Amino acid sequence: MRILLVGAGGVGDAFAKIIARRTFFEHVIVCDYDLARAERTVVAVAAKHGPEVASRFTAAQIDAGDPDRVAAVASEHRATHVMNAVEPKFVPTIFTGALAAGCDYLDMAVSLSEPHPTNPYSETGVKLGDDQFALAADWETAGRLALVGMGVEPGLSDVFARYASDHLFREIDELGTRDGANLVVRDEAGNEIFAPSFSIWTTIEECLNPPVIFEKDRGWFTTEPFSEPEMFDFPEGIGPVECVNVEHEEVLLMPRWLDAKRVTFKYGLGEEFIGVLKTLHLLGLDSVEPVRVRSAAGPAMVAPRDVVAASLPDPATIGPRMTGKTCAGVWVTGTGPGGRRREVYLYHVSDNEWTMREYDAQCVVWQTALNPVIALELLAAGTWGGIGVLGPEAFDAKPFLDLMSAPIEEGGYGEAWGMEDRLAARA
Amino acid sequence: MRILLVGAGGVGDAFAKIIARRTFFEHVIVCDYDLARAERTVVAVAAKHGPEVASRFTAAQIDAGDPDRVAAVASEHRATHVMNAVEPKFVPTIFTGALAAGCDYLDMAVSLSEPHPTNPYSETGVKLGDDQFALAADWETAGRLALVGMGVEPGLSDVFARYASDHLFREIDELGTRDGANLVVRDEAGNEIFAPSFSIWTTIEECLNPPVIFEKDRGWFTTEPFSEPEMFDFPEGIGPVECVNVEHEEVLLMPRWLDAKRVTFKYGLGEEFIGVLKTLHLLGLDSVEPVRVRSAAGPAMVAPRDVVAASLPDPATIGPRMTGKTCAGVWVTGTGPGGRRREVYLYHVSDNEWTMREYDAQCVVWQTALNPVIALELLAAGTWGGIGVLGPEAFDAKPFLDLMSAPIEEGGYGEAWGMEDRLAARA
Repeated sequence: MRILLVGAGGVGDAFAKIIARRTFFEHVIVCDYDLARAERTVVAVAAKHGPEVASRFTAAQIDAGDPDRVAAVASEHRATHVMNAVEPKFVPTIFTGALAAGCDYLDMAVSLSEPHPTNPYSETGVKLGDDQFALAADWETAGRLALVGMGVEPGLSDVFARYASDHLFREIDELGTRDGANLVVRDEAGNEIFAPSFSIWTTIEECLNPPVIFEKDRGWFTTEPFSEPEMFDFPEGIGPVECVNVEHEEVLLMPRWLDAKRVTFKYGLGEEFIGVLKTLHLLGLDSVEPVRVRSAAGPAMVAPRDVVAASLPDPATIGPRMTGKTCAGVWVTGTGPGGRRREVYLYHVSDNEWTMREYDAQCVVWQTALNPVIALELLAAGTWGGIGVLGPEAFDAKPFLDLMSAPIEEGGYGEAWGMEDRLAARA
Repeated sequence: MRILLVGAGGVGDAFAKIIARRTFFEHVIVCDYDLARAERTVVAVAAKHGPEVASRFTAAQIDAGDPDRVAAVASEHRATHVMNAVEPKFVPTIFTGALAAGCDYLDMAVSLSEPHPTNPYSETGVKLGDDQFALAADWETAGRLALVGMGVEPGLSDVFARYASDHLFREIDELGTRDGANLVVRDEAGNEIFAPSFSIWTTIEECLNPPVIFEKDRGWFTTEPFSEPEMFDFPEGIGPVECVNVEHEEVLLMPRWLDAKRVTFKYGLGEEFIGVLKTLHLLGLDSVEPVRVRSAAGPAMVAPRDVVAASLPDPATIGPRMTGKTCAGVWVTGTGPGGRRREVYLYHVSDNEWTMREYDAQCVVWQTALNPVIALELLAAGTWGGIGVLGPEAFDAKPFLDLMSAPIEEGGYGEAWGMEDRLAARA
């Protein structure tokens, strides 16, 4: 397996640092538009693991926005798999380039949606992933696999949903992905500051798009942003966080393979962050349309959203000043195999101080990057296999969760996942 | 009286439109850095009042940031009075230029403050107006008058305070300026939009500076922004609005001439607007330090606060789409002449639909510009007079309020002011 890793940003860098500890692959070509960034990742791997491991990594330059360049770089390096680790706006070009090069493909976010032209807050327009599923026949014809949405959310969340469906429930009422954290960032003086742990640009995109919900008897539909607020109690000391509906891949992926009356995604943004996003929208500061502004060099045309991103600390730099945990999981309700009511939360928690110490990677990007490494290992071993455009829930969840949780000394990843029985907890 | 009006923005333009209906002056020279803007104001006066009135108005170019240019333009046009109607950052240069030209001077906002270097939220640093009062001896020596803070707030509010002090109270506990409005702006489809009726740039400056408070036994001191929130019930249908402490001239001016145990200024920003300002501060979007942002023409250095201003509708354009009223006034508590407890609110209300129809001026700028016109008429008549640097409360309030409220056909301005007895209302 020769992996063309496209993107050496936070997630790409963490992917390299995680896979460097495994032996299942032959080579990783770390690519970035900025070659120096790709080289920095390879140097970090070499510094940690020495020349032998580093010899299996190569840095290269790539233009992810050009499918021909993606295909050319993949062919040049004899890649068998293309691992997409850049912003979702590049999905179409990398997806096309990978197929043209005859590679299998993985990503952690799918092709973007477009709102319904007249009823954006009740009907779907172009849905997340639609552009990729539209090309499924091409991938089938080529005999190649595109495993889409294989990060933590989507990704591990979809694996949990498949596991619940196969092993824990006879009938599922709701597959509800619930994401929450208690991360805190401090300035040098130790004061808490406002510093999102992920790109504010992407978060605005995600949170202000109309959230999508699936219901079995209604299909996919949308709501107003921040709809159905709910306090969800997260495990391992994180505690209750206000969660709201957000447009996310799970809602589009899970119903294609799993049977549930309702599929939702709620993000634990917390009250303060929801307030911030609402204000940015109210003032038009979420806009990507350039406005005319004075600058020292004369009038400039800048997108307000870019200015918001530029005004906040760079998420790539806050890891050392951040404490707390992030939790990804799926809350499943329905009827258990014995016919009794069941409500469980399947989850995985990532602790920032641990990921910084162990991997020099911030916990949110580390947790995202872990899952495609595991998936690639299962594909390399032949435990997982398939052709066409498939989500994580199209594969057997048990070997994934077993490999993830097995101790490192037994060849696993040593990453425990948890299951809480919420009915029992309330009883 | 020959008046050099510096600035033909919203307030300057409204000043010209108001004074055009009066006869007490000889000539107004309407100046602006942008000559076309000054000419637009003169053309508007000519269109409304005909060539005879228009012959008493001249447009001219000026650089308000250069005291020598201010003095030269004033001398060239034989000005007797300089009327400052630009942003407060130009106060020092216009103030100096007016004195050099041997003119009297009026403004509607005083020289800016600088926070205390180590304890900004408890102690004052350089206070509003300090730089002007420091030069009072020069004005006295020259025998010239600088009447500072003569808009609506400061201005009419200070006149109300003097009136209460002279005619309504034996002893004053608090002189509390309270400003509130129920203005609503709609888009073309008729939906309410977020569009402040005044410069967001200046509002951020005002609201995020440490608010200043005066107490007789403590002197001037500062607090955290948005301190001491209070619901204040405004008259004429405006109703209750959440008001918070804001740094404002009244607190610096009133105690110099009037006796009160406490002097405050609270601005009826309303909950939504306070939330917006807090969020802008949290995200650093109130900053005037340029940040590096991509633009179509390459990286640009822009101040986030400029981008916020550029993203919102231009306050100069919203008048026709705005409805509602704005209220300026002073809430006075203490002991009446007869020795009984007294609480009154003295106020003036301006209705946007009326000011737009009558003056083609938005109500907030119209209400600001009205008061220096009345003051100049009293100075021209010799009813008001003085030398040095004086606030509006240094002059007898009664002739001002009488001239303001007298019917137009009797030579007044036909603008009623109101007084509410709040103790009686509660009884």
